[in-house]
Amino acid sequence: MQVSQTNLAGDLLLNLGRYGNGPLHERVKRALRSAIREGRIEVGAALPPSRQLAADLGCSRWAVTEAYGQLVAEGYLEARSGSATRVRWSNAPDTDVARPAARQTPAARFDLAPGLPDLRAFPRRRWADAVRAQAAQATVTELGYPPAGGHLRLRRLLAEYLGRSRGVSTTAQDVTVCTSVTDGVRRMCYALRTQGITAVGCEEPGWTRLRQVIRAAGLEPVPIRTDHGGLRTDDLVGHPGLRAVLTAPAHQFPLGTVLVPERRAALLDWARRVDGVVLEDDYDAEFRYDRRPVASVQGMDPSRVVLFKSLSKTLSPALGIGWMVAPPRWAQQLHQADQVSAQPSTLDQLAFAALLESGAYHRHLRACRQRYRQRRDALVQVLADRLPDCPVSGIAAGLHLILRLPTAVDTAAVVAAAAARSLLVADLAAYHATDAQAAHGLVLGYGNLADSGLHEAVNLLREAINEGSR
Amino acid sequence: MQVSQTNLAGDLLLNLGRYGNGPLHERVKRALRSAIREGRIEVGAALPPSRQLAADLGCSRWAVTEAYGQLVAEGYLEARSGSATRVRWSNAPDTDVARPAARQTPAARFDLAPGLPDLRAFPRRRWADAVRAQAAQATVTELGYPPAGGHLRLRRLLAEYLGRSRGVSTTAQDVTVCTSVTDGVRRMCYALRTQGITAVGCEEPGWTRLRQVIRAAGLEPVPIRTDHGGLRTDDLVGHPGLRAVLTAPAHQFPLGTVLVPERRAALLDWARRVDGVVLEDDYDAEFRYDRRPVASVQGMDPSRVVLFKSLSKTLSPALGIGWMVAPPRWAQQLHQADQVSAQPSTLDQLAFAALLESGAYHRHLRACRQRYRQRRDALVQVLADRLPDCPVSGIAAGLHLILRLPTAVDTAAVVAAAAARSLLVADLAAYHATDAQAAHGLVLGYGNLADSGLHEAVNLLREAINEGSR
Repeated sequence: MQVSQTNLAGDLLLNLGRYGNGPLHERVKRALRSAIREGRIEVGAALPPSRQLAADLGCSRWAVTEAYGQLVAEGYLEARSGSATRVRWSNAPDTDVARPAARQTPAARFDLAPGLPDLRAFPRRRWADAVRAQAAQATVTELGYPPAGGHLRLRRLLAEYLGRSRGVSTTAQDVTVCTSVTDGVRRMCYALRTQGITAVGCEEPGWTRLRQVIRAAGLEPVPIRTDHGGLRTDDLVGHPGLRAVLTAPAHQFPLGTVLVPERRAALLDWARRVDGVVLEDDYDAEFRYDRRPVASVQGMDPSRVVLFKSLSKTLSPALGIGWMVAPPRWAQQLHQADQVSAQPSTLDQLAFAALLESGAYHRHLRACRQRYRQRRDALVQVLADRLPDCPVSGIAAGLHLILRLPTAVDTAAVVAAAAARSLLVADLAAYHATDAQAAHGLVLGYGNLADSGLHEAVNLLREAINEGSR
Repeated sequence: MQVSQTNLAGDLLLNLGRYGNGPLHERVKRALRSAIREGRIEVGAALPPSRQLAADLGCSRWAVTEAYGQLVAEGYLEARSGSATRVRWSNAPDTDVARPAARQTPAARFDLAPGLPDLRAFPRRRWADAVRAQAAQATVTELGYPPAGGHLRLRRLLAEYLGRSRGVSTTAQDVTVCTSVTDGVRRMCYALRTQGITAVGCEEPGWTRLRQVIRAAGLEPVPIRTDHGGLRTDDLVGHPGLRAVLTAPAHQFPLGTVLVPERRAALLDWARRVDGVVLEDDYDAEFRYDRRPVASVQGMDPSRVVLFKSLSKTLSPALGIGWMVAPPRWAQQLHQADQVSAQPSTLDQLAFAALLESGAYHRHLRACRQRYRQRRDALVQVLADRLPDCPVSGIAAGLHLILRLPTAVDTAAVVAAAAARSLLVADLAAYHATDAQAAHGLVLGYGNLADSGLHEAVNLLREAINEGSR
């Protein structure tokens, strides 16, 4: 509805209430701006003289001139001396674009989807204490822009910790703090591209998101088959020109296998031969149940391997803290690219550094390992009891296992039937870039499953499998 | 130095001490791994039988077999039944690459470089309290992966706050949380590219880093001249095909000008005519001293403007929290790109949301504005007293001003002479992509200058200018 000069005061009075109880000139300004924006006053229309509008509104003339002046500065009005103040600008409505509501994570009752640690075990108080201590102690310089590559204290402690716990051979300078493994791989892709490398071998099956990141960075993910011994390194030679490969030797996702020793050596031999680089996703390396964790491949040849890791599977993905360890020539590239990348908050970096230094992070991992092992044992037992026709595999490490389904079962129907029961599970086929028919099973993550819900979750899964078998 | 099977035990004993006081098998493993890595044991060499090495080391045989077994799994050794355990892998040294030490921010005594807020005023305790409260209250789901675009509570509060304080017209769905203005512009560049937009108009002079980000994203930054009225919108038509422009209408960097009303309208007219988009850097908008802040251009046409802002100039760049407000069609693109971008920690997002909700952020800004205004007044006064030949400009808002130098002065020499006195200042010419000769002055940031050091800083600056005049 258009308002004329004569009924402007009425329109404004009606709308002043919408603008809270701030200063009157501010409310007049907002009401007037809305009237202009919403097209209720035409472009070119003259506004009443300030004295008149003030009288109509029952306010001081100053409030009106102040509101007019502000809207002139903002470009909505124009004032010429000796002439009326006029509307300069109106906004044609363009807000009716249909689109979906913002994504909300569905809160399922039972979360057996892979990819999360035990979020109930997040050390809330310990984290808050660490942030508080660092916020109190940080120097003024530390409250400024962080140095490229991350805070040196964290990088030094990571280099030491990774040397001790993962057999990683590096120095603080070659550690880059990033926000996740995904973020690290993304950065590395840009570095690879500057070196003319345009393809990255990816485990097949493998973690879908990393393939997406590689593609989004303009590189081609090349599927390399993976079996009970991990990545089939023999297959690498079948791709002439390939000079980079992404693999999770400590614990492959989703198959749960460990790269066998002869392939570890073969992988590095290949990298040397083609003057290439191995991208080592140190996935779930901490959670090995049958023996001590296998050390990183990085330690075997620090000049040929870039190692990626984050807190997403050990503390929480909500923290957004990860790191990468690269040979000097790549580390330099990565630091240079840092200006176009994001770093976690310096206070969070320092808080994590404090947890590393005090040993609290190590103790947290040890406690998690025990809890996950017990949960795995319980889950494997209940699955064997309730679903004897479905063999499990990949249970030696990590936070997930593979449940094979009889060939008569429609896997996608099982996933849907489970979701209808508020139970999240993942289809193994979803992690295949090619050849998905070969995969016939589910990936069950038990990291974030409440122990108390384990039996009911498996009962619901059995119902879903029955429904998917019809 | 190579060690033979016979002196291996001696070599290991010498090195066990380097590996702390953990379990003996672990220390044996590490010492042996180092010997292999460092080439002190040759590839193919047979290791002594475990019983013999255990006797030489004076430890249990189990410790040795465990160490051997671990190194077999890691690929350093190979064991064949009926044969000696042999070294499979050695690492050719490749660590002598020369490179600079990791960058450290130099701690100057007086920081008059632009780009930092008053880091001494960072509300350390308030921030730590907010993080603690959110860490305690967060749901388990909130400790998982954050939703694309950021936490909805923060986005809703930002939409409200920006509407109130910056005249921004938006909804939570169209707010995207990012880590900085740089990060937001980087994301937007990728979105622009998907729409076939390959060039972005940039203020000349302007913030160098944003030009770099645009170029790094594969787009061309096109210099658009800027004068006392802000961006010269008339110049936009001189670039046919240009459909995107990045500008800071509230307070231009480095000139400190405000986009005049007629150009605000012209800017949007241009964007509509070319079906383009305005990237509005809402730089230093909060810190205006002569009048109330001018509202955002975004509010004048939310369908044509993407607004960028961060906490880097209001709280601290160490937090790594920023946001962008985009029209629905761009917001969707930006959310889709979110999977390849980084978000700030969810706990930090929630902590900032709490500061917004309680009004603490608003009060912090108000207190800062008063403090900065007083500091600006003091600085302008001291400069007028001590450097009467150097006029200042751009003082109506923000955290920096321009100090013009007499033409006889060598600006670069002044910057160097100041740095030698532990005083950081910036050369205005550094912010010009072209035509840098026209700029003859310094950019002095007073955001992070300690009030107590003001007089001494200006005295040192005078010395530096005298030195640069010779």
